[in-house]
Amino acid sequence: MASVPIAGSRFVIIGGGSLVGSATAGELLDAGAAEVRLFDNFSMGAESAVAHLKDHPRLKIIRGDVMRMSDLLAALEGADGALLLAAYMTLNMDRDPWGGLDVNIRGVQNALEASVARGVRKVVFASSNAVYGYGPGIKGDLVEGTPFYSEGAPPAAIIYGATKIIGEQLCRTYTAKRGLPHVVLRYSTVYGERQHHRAANALYIIETLEKLSRGEPPEIFGDGSETKHFVYVGDLARANRMAFESAASNVAVNCSGPAPVTTRQLVELVTELAGGGPAPSFVGETAGKVRLTSGGAFRIAHEKAFSAIGWRPEVDMREGLSRLIKWLKEGNA
Amino acid sequence: MASVPIAGSRFVIIGGGSLVGSATAGELLDAGAAEVRLFDNFSMGAESAVAHLKDHPRLKIIRGDVMRMSDLLAALEGADGALLLAAYMTLNMDRDPWGGLDVNIRGVQNALEASVARGVRKVVFASSNAVYGYGPGIKGDLVEGTPFYSEGAPPAAIIYGATKIIGEQLCRTYTAKRGLPHVVLRYSTVYGERQHHRAANALYIIETLEKLSRGEPPEIFGDGSETKHFVYVGDLARANRMAFESAASNVAVNCSGPAPVTTRQLVELVTELAGGGPAPSFVGETAGKVRLTSGGAFRIAHEKAFSAIGWRPEVDMREGLSRLIKWLKEGNA
Repeated sequence: MASVPIAGSRFVIIGGGSLVGSATAGELLDAGAAEVRLFDNFSMGAESAVAHLKDHPRLKIIRGDVMRMSDLLAALEGADGALLLAAYMTLNMDRDPWGGLDVNIRGVQNALEASVARGVRKVVFASSNAVYGYGPGIKGDLVEGTPFYSEGAPPAAIIYGATKIIGEQLCRTYTAKRGLPHVVLRYSTVYGERQHHRAANALYIIETLEKLSRGEPPEIFGDGSETKHFVYVGDLARANRMAFESAASNVAVNCSGPAPVTTRQLVELVTELAGGGPAPSFVGETAGKVRLTSGGAFRIAHEKAFSAIGWRPEVDMREGLSRLIKWLKEGNA
Repeated sequence: MASVPIAGSRFVIIGGGSLVGSATAGELLDAGAAEVRLFDNFSMGAESAVAHLKDHPRLKIIRGDVMRMSDLLAALEGADGALLLAAYMTLNMDRDPWGGLDVNIRGVQNALEASVARGVRKVVFASSNAVYGYGPGIKGDLVEGTPFYSEGAPPAAIIYGATKIIGEQLCRTYTAKRGLPHVVLRYSTVYGERQHHRAANALYIIETLEKLSRGEPPEIFGDGSETKHFVYVGDLARANRMAFESAASNVAVNCSGPAPVTTRQLVELVTELAGGGPAPSFVGETAGKVRLTSGGAFRIAHEKAFSAIGWRPEVDMREGLSRLIKWLKEGNA
């Protein structure tokens, strides 16, 4: 039985100083967790992302590094569940592939090994829709059996996706050979309060808002028909909680928002919610930027997540973007 | 201009104590290479695989490890070309995923970094048809843009394929950012003289021969209609040489034999060439074995290799198996 009830249990969020980490900490604390430990080296994770939590009596912030087994073994002592978020994404992988491959592969091995050593009862691994890749093959419904498309994509994006594929398989290995239950959640592009600047796709929302705040027209690459499929951070926090609570193990499921959106729809919605602004300008490709493309309209199917852990997304983009904009207007960034 | 002529040039074969390494050393020496250095830690590579070469005046055997930059920097001093073969394959990856991920990823980074530092003029990277994966998606013509299928495959096989995907992308990165030309050759299953026991598919040929030599019926899993696509080691040695000689860079091509074969055809051919033997027995799945499946008849297309580096396979399975069997009968193993 792989279920870890939240109330009374202790959790470690590895890579906790992050958008998803801080939201999940709040979710687990609200559900009665005995303790939540946010483990991060804060090299990317911002202490500001967890500042609102740091005085919580059941929350503990631990400065540590996934590359150091001693840090992980100490942090996981007495833990019931571990959420593994620590990772380089595409933009950082492009800048530092040595560090990225360390963290995304050896870091996962270290976290799984330390979890076994400490008797952790379940691991939830944050994977990504990057396991389906990029380019012309990405169209229609993306289900969990969709292969990894990489032809023509930038090296760092392919490397990032491949590290997530390896991380998932390491989880399967630790379940089969070491008896450590796990659930893999393949997040689609996350957005919401405490948004950071590290993800190529989510960054676009922030850049659009910044353009509008300066009175400049937002930029749309190409004709604006390109699809994006986001997920609201609060929905992911709930998915993480439900992955611990459910009896499921040894399964990988997509976590995406209610529906995909085109770039043009996104920019129009952001403009409307920001209180209006100049019409978007349609621009060509920008040299030097890591651009992730698809082959047409697509949707990341999340039906399997409902059957496996009972989760479905609740917050649509109008609501989620309103919350993000409100949070930004309150002086956050 | 990325061409490295063989005559007068110096080459390092990293992971040289191997089936492909020893054959390529012979190929490069025959073509007039000034020096060929076989670099290996001999943890898997057998010294017996290179014993026939060790007194060659232009060959040097260097004991070293891809995990040690100092070893690589010393070995690559003054080298014109580097062939990167060192890797764990699926069976070893299953037994030791920590070592395998080190060698297949950090080992590639180390080799590329050392090649840049030493002014190597071209790297040839040994990738694999494992970048197309396994399972139901594997059918028809597999071309270089075919995605990576992994649903339902064993973790170690998926991890192996993903490390090869990452290795290829690291080559692209070093070409783009560091100016190091490269060619990726995606080998299909290699067989031939000095065959080892480490590859799941090629092992099957050896196992069949061993059964026959004991007078036992060879085993066929399932109905024998499963496709395999092998390539003869001498053809690969030639592909490696031509990859150095050609002006091509920043390209990945398949290297497969003239035609695929079904398991049944293979066993019948091996039985005939071995001088006859009992009819094969058809058996069910064997628990505990790493079995790599496909979705039906497939062919690994090698036409792009011809247009990129002028290579096509020359040795068919009847000829290649005859050579392997002759070599085994001469008392080798």
